[in-house]
Amino acid sequence: MAAAAQLLRGAARAARGPPALALAAPAGRRALGSAPPGMAAGRRGRRAALAAAGALGGLGLGLGLWRWQQAAMAAAEEDEKEEEELRQRFMAPPVSGLRELLRRRRRELRSRMELLIMETQGEVCRALAALDPGATFAVDTWERKEGGGGISCVLQDGEVFEKAGVNVSVVFGLLSEEAARQMRSRGKSLKAKDGKLPFCAMGVSSVIHPKNPHVPTMHFNYRYFEIEEADGTKQWWFGGGTDLTPTYLNEEDAVHFHKTLKEACDKHDLKLYPKYKKWCDDYFYIKHRGERRGIGGIFFDDVDSPSKEEVFQFVKSCAKAVVPCYIPIVKRHCHDSFTPDEKLWQQLRRGRYVEFNLVYDRGTKFGLLTPGSRIESILMSLPLTARWEYMHTPPESSKEAEILEVLRNPKDWVH
Amino acid sequence: MAAAAQLLRGAARAARGPPALALAAPAGRRALGSAPPGMAAGRRGRRAALAAAGALGGLGLGLGLWRWQQAAMAAAEEDEKEEEELRQRFMAPPVSGLRELLRRRRRELRSRMELLIMETQGEVCRALAALDPGATFAVDTWERKEGGGGISCVLQDGEVFEKAGVNVSVVFGLLSEEAARQMRSRGKSLKAKDGKLPFCAMGVSSVIHPKNPHVPTMHFNYRYFEIEEADGTKQWWFGGGTDLTPTYLNEEDAVHFHKTLKEACDKHDLKLYPKYKKWCDDYFYIKHRGERRGIGGIFFDDVDSPSKEEVFQFVKSCAKAVVPCYIPIVKRHCHDSFTPDEKLWQQLRRGRYVEFNLVYDRGTKFGLLTPGSRIESILMSLPLTARWEYMHTPPESSKEAEILEVLRNPKDWVH
Repeated sequence: MAAAAQLLRGAARAARGPPALALAAPAGRRALGSAPPGMAAGRRGRRAALAAAGALGGLGLGLGLWRWQQAAMAAAEEDEKEEEELRQRFMAPPVSGLRELLRRRRRELRSRMELLIMETQGEVCRALAALDPGATFAVDTWERKEGGGGISCVLQDGEVFEKAGVNVSVVFGLLSEEAARQMRSRGKSLKAKDGKLPFCAMGVSSVIHPKNPHVPTMHFNYRYFEIEEADGTKQWWFGGGTDLTPTYLNEEDAVHFHKTLKEACDKHDLKLYPKYKKWCDDYFYIKHRGERRGIGGIFFDDVDSPSKEEVFQFVKSCAKAVVPCYIPIVKRHCHDSFTPDEKLWQQLRRGRYVEFNLVYDRGTKFGLLTPGSRIESILMSLPLTARWEYMHTPPESSKEAEILEVLRNPKDWVH
Repeated sequence: MAAAAQLLRGAARAARGPPALALAAPAGRRALGSAPPGMAAGRRGRRAALAAAGALGGLGLGLGLWRWQQAAMAAAEEDEKEEEELRQRFMAPPVSGLRELLRRRRRELRSRMELLIMETQGEVCRALAALDPGATFAVDTWERKEGGGGISCVLQDGEVFEKAGVNVSVVFGLLSEEAARQMRSRGKSLKAKDGKLPFCAMGVSSVIHPKNPHVPTMHFNYRYFEIEEADGTKQWWFGGGTDLTPTYLNEEDAVHFHKTLKEACDKHDLKLYPKYKKWCDDYFYIKHRGERRGIGGIFFDDVDSPSKEEVFQFVKSCAKAVVPCYIPIVKRHCHDSFTPDEKLWQQLRRGRYVEFNLVYDRGTKFGLLTPGSRIESILMSLPLTARWEYMHTPPESSKEAEILEVLRNPKDWVH
């Protein structure tokens, strides 16, 4: 599911956030590693204000106030240090502004979710870039006219990766009742005021297509939605998943991938992995081919229990599992030798990936049909190249037939 | 529109038609030119029966009967000659059986339509094969369990053509009211008996993807539908069109293509070309890109006036225009030199072709969602290879920008 990160895109945005951040957010693209400059003005400003207050205090107020000032300055310094660290780790300034998010994170889960998706984007991009030293991520920030925006990071035609995209989007505004119903997979009806529902949707979404046919394609997406009904009730839910699409089956890789996801799930509830593993096999089904897109992973949608905090902690564990479940597989195989025939089979499987994404994927379909979407971010999930041959059928007992068998009849990889 | 030829596919069929034809239709594939063997038994059988009747007549009946026998034998010989000729021209025996079609053609338009689509398939395949001497068309005949079948001819990885498919399908059976409504673009409601409507759908459908980026892709499709309502009323309509998708704009080619189609239309009614040219521009619209798939041609659907015979004659003119509107363009450019950059732009445009076909094309969508469809025939329209680059934007005033401009703002090529 391309999902949240691909919902309701807007036009390319230049720079966002409070004025201090405008400096720090160069318009358009930059390469990974060139951390946003500036911010000194903002930082100096805040500390200077406290120092000024201190100076004022020193004019005649007592020790208590002075100590309070010292503590406040220390806390502010700590906050600034964290802000500075996060700024280095993020690919671009967050849509809602970093300082704003840090300020609000203790009382608002959505701010913590935005910090999590930003952190995940940075983490994954850095891990991928480290494996493909010659390539750089193009970082595009964009704004949605109706509210919100996003950050698209794309690495193209590298040594290891054919195309790797990691998108963040945070969009808000008003939804029609119909659109709101479509967003929610269970299709619950929502009571709107004047037919409109204030909403917020955010997520991180990624597809990684490597060059070597022995390195599988990986997709993940974690997203959060809020909709406010006419009576002020807030409906919220999470969705997401991580899944693997190999060209050839490697059992060891399949087990490692599923085991890492299972461990992330098991920390929260032993029932989650089996349930979401099955949901993944059911969701990524190319009906007209009778095949799954890949060998699965986990997938869930519309999750709103046991509590917002608990689901968030679960989603956080899943997001943190992305790098450990995938990167070791890339490292293990990115220098494997391969034949032209193996490359060709990869290209045919890429064709199936395109078929799934354009014909079935709910997020992609919803995105393409939504006016004002950012098409380039939605279709970033498509491979650099794909192939369709009429009546291609791999010989029995071949390695190509082996993976097809698993795509037709999903297996359990861990118990 | 992949349309009729792609509607409601069945499983692969081995051999079809009356027993005499079973001999003549080898199961599975064969290459163009290897005309079906056999039929001698069938031909000899019919003449032998007349001769036997003559011998019987000679036993004592008068001159009148003898003359009638002579005339009947001459007519039968003529029919057999035509049958033999058609058999050489068709890629495989027709779904409804050649002799049956010839017998019924004077009283049934649908038999004449089936002969026309078979003839068109043969004509186009031969014209393409003549330009790509090293390549052969694989001919697959298939049967639909619920009724009917088809003939798929595909040439792959030739010198001139990357992938060229010409499909015929003739399917019949019972449709649900919902499916019948979807088939008809105007969505008329039809009165069914017990919720089911007997129907017949037939058509020829083709997509030709050449290798050289200076040779455009061409698509055509001509189809005929019949649905019988509860009170016995038969609804019928035709649909179809021919359209061109160049990688680079060549005005001379565009004018030749449109002019040839206009001439075919003008023979029937001067209003047809402008109307169907606009319909084509509107139909082949990739909404999420704000671009047409190509530079158009003609497109029409749901045409049921002025009369069945007149619409058939119009469709026949269109089908006959396929070879003259396209083949001269292929001949002119198939040896043009091209750069790797031009090939790359072609691959990106192929990506757009895939987007249109999988996201918007009514025939493809309907086919993919119909259980028991012959997927390989439906997706034959996809190119051998395609490419998606994130944020690819051709430089201003380039040849790539020139075609994009025309795809965004369709032009009139003939007046």
